[in-house]
Amino acid sequence: MSNFQKRREIIYNWMNNEKIALIMIEDSEGKRNTDLRWLSGQPGDSLLFLSAQGKSLLVPWDINLAKIYADADQVLPYGEFERQPVKALKKALEYFKIIENAKIEIPGTTSYPSYVNFTKEIPNYNILCRENGVAGFIEQKRAIKDDFEIKLYRKLSGLTDEIINMVEKGIFSNNLKTEADVALFIENESRKMGCEGVGFDIIAAGPARSFGIHAFPSYTGENFRGKGLSILDFGLKLDGYTSDVTLTFAKEPLSKPQAEMVSLVKEASQIAISMAKNGERTRNISLAVDKFFSNSGKTMPHALGHGIGLDAHEAPSVRSRIDNEWILEPGMILALEPGLYDPVHGGCRLENDVLITEENYELLTNSRIIHL
Amino acid sequence: MSNFQKRREIIYNWMNNEKIALIMIEDSEGKRNTDLRWLSGQPGDSLLFLSAQGKSLLVPWDINLAKIYADADQVLPYGEFERQPVKALKKALEYFKIIENAKIEIPGTTSYPSYVNFTKEIPNYNILCRENGVAGFIEQKRAIKDDFEIKLYRKLSGLTDEIINMVEKGIFSNNLKTEADVALFIENESRKMGCEGVGFDIIAAGPARSFGIHAFPSYTGENFRGKGLSILDFGLKLDGYTSDVTLTFAKEPLSKPQAEMVSLVKEASQIAISMAKNGERTRNISLAVDKFFSNSGKTMPHALGHGIGLDAHEAPSVRSRIDNEWILEPGMILALEPGLYDPVHGGCRLENDVLITEENYELLTNSRIIHL
Repeated sequence: MSNFQKRREIIYNWMNNEKIALIMIEDSEGKRNTDLRWLSGQPGDSLLFLSAQGKSLLVPWDINLAKIYADADQVLPYGEFERQPVKALKKALEYFKIIENAKIEIPGTTSYPSYVNFTKEIPNYNILCRENGVAGFIEQKRAIKDDFEIKLYRKLSGLTDEIINMVEKGIFSNNLKTEADVALFIENESRKMGCEGVGFDIIAAGPARSFGIHAFPSYTGENFRGKGLSILDFGLKLDGYTSDVTLTFAKEPLSKPQAEMVSLVKEASQIAISMAKNGERTRNISLAVDKFFSNSGKTMPHALGHGIGLDAHEAPSVRSRIDNEWILEPGMILALEPGLYDPVHGGCRLENDVLITEENYELLTNSRIIHL
Repeated sequence: MSNFQKRREIIYNWMNNEKIALIMIEDSEGKRNTDLRWLSGQPGDSLLFLSAQGKSLLVPWDINLAKIYADADQVLPYGEFERQPVKALKKALEYFKIIENAKIEIPGTTSYPSYVNFTKEIPNYNILCRENGVAGFIEQKRAIKDDFEIKLYRKLSGLTDEIINMVEKGIFSNNLKTEADVALFIENESRKMGCEGVGFDIIAAGPARSFGIHAFPSYTGENFRGKGLSILDFGLKLDGYTSDVTLTFAKEPLSKPQAEMVSLVKEASQIAISMAKNGERTRNISLAVDKFFSNSGKTMPHALGHGIGLDAHEAPSVRSRIDNEWILEPGMILALEPGLYDPVHGGCRLENDVLITEENYELLTNSRIIHL
């Protein structure tokens, strides 16, 4: 049984418990949803129907791509339905012989006007459109990586560390000068390593721009290796999964506020990683770091961390807000990224990826603050 | 009056005609909406409120970015509302002193569960959530570029042509060998030219992968300059606006089916461009190209073209489907991209950008099929 099939079986069981006859999962431009890839291997631009009878139907835009990547019981080209989800859903109801009045679930992201259209076009079924329906259930399952995913992450983290070392060398040797030099070096090397590319827009922000949490544009032709603090935030993408690390380059001599930020962020990173253990509440970790920073009169303007996987940001979130607390379990993989920012002195962020194990944690990446 | 202010005035007038007191526009991760930038200059991650009284309120995630880019009457940080649209909307109703029972419009992309929450949290207003509400009106307006935008596109097209020439030279001189070489060369040069980068993921597909409409991954470390047909699809992004061109590289000797595809696509491109005139129906152009291809027993598996602007795909669409027909008007800018694909012989696509003028058309870019 393939990994994809195993994951679908989990959903089929849940569907039978919930008495849901059919589920539609959608990935399209402007509505990306990596649950599609997690359940079928298909990279995107498709609908996936799962029937409680334990069968799957994939409806891809690009049928050639599906031939290479997709793991599904049946495949029908989206073109047959003029790329209209409601038409494909009608076909799926017929194909799986779903009885009338059964519960069928469409994505919780379906817009209100579309939802109204679904209920009009398909009046004889009980159409569910919920914030925490099947998507919430899949989110919980995806938060805990399976053996295949953990093995992949060990490999991906090794590749990420290789890139970190190469970038460090390139900057010391002065081969990488501008923000674009650094970012495009990573884009190129990632592909040479057999990655799909990078997991998100690389942020390479030299001293003049590192004060921004997410510098805009994410990199430019400006100098990266200048006096002060420069931030490099990147992730490699391997078979759909992304790593996520941030390095800070600190070119001496630093001003006193810069040196203080560097020292605080380093310590905050150690605090966060040391608390990342089975049974710990994510909010506790975040609050500990908040407290540590506030002891020095500092505030971090973003969340401490997040899970990584087929999305660069996924469950579990690691933040101080009370409404999204998670208890850490073995198999979770977190990116922890304490950072401090100052409009005058620039910013400093340090981000590493950590796997939660039964007894402890496994630090996957070796991102660091590099003094130049 | 700024360009942004002028555009907002158009919306205020419309709101007064439609008796809509307040509009909320949202751009966020996973829900990109460049209407925000068109109306305020802010690149993203914000809410924009427009009041029928003729005033605007921007609620940005990154307040530092807003200080550089935003054009709005008032700015309040999103953090004050825990990044929850419903809380920000409550504040906007208070700030603009909107009277109860007034019509307020939220994005048509709002999910059904969110919509229910809005109506629960804000019960004393008439909340509109429509597929063709203000977004449909803005789409119409954005389809016709203003003088500022046309000037920008002439500059952007010139830069795009420069890149085309540089890539051609790099391939002939053998400096650009792999798909990644070509793509990253463009990424780098675009930034050196002062662009924000590229407008969408560059597709560089060598002969082994050019059969796919959108090759996946979009470029790899594999050879680009091999025997047969290679496709390069890219756009530069300048101040938010994107160009969109596709070149095909044809390395001789071509097989007979390859030579036929090249010849047909060239001619289809001429047919399409020559029809791109004030008053023409977009569907007619698309049907003419379909007919031309079908005379040779060929079918194009995607739409003929689309408008370009702050989105790589925007109105007007140029396709054969009857439900999205537009009549061309001066100021519209189209990307026209006939293409043919064969799983064995590879693919050929030729895409250029065209401005519709009063009397004729202005070919903005000089993309071409290059024989190696």
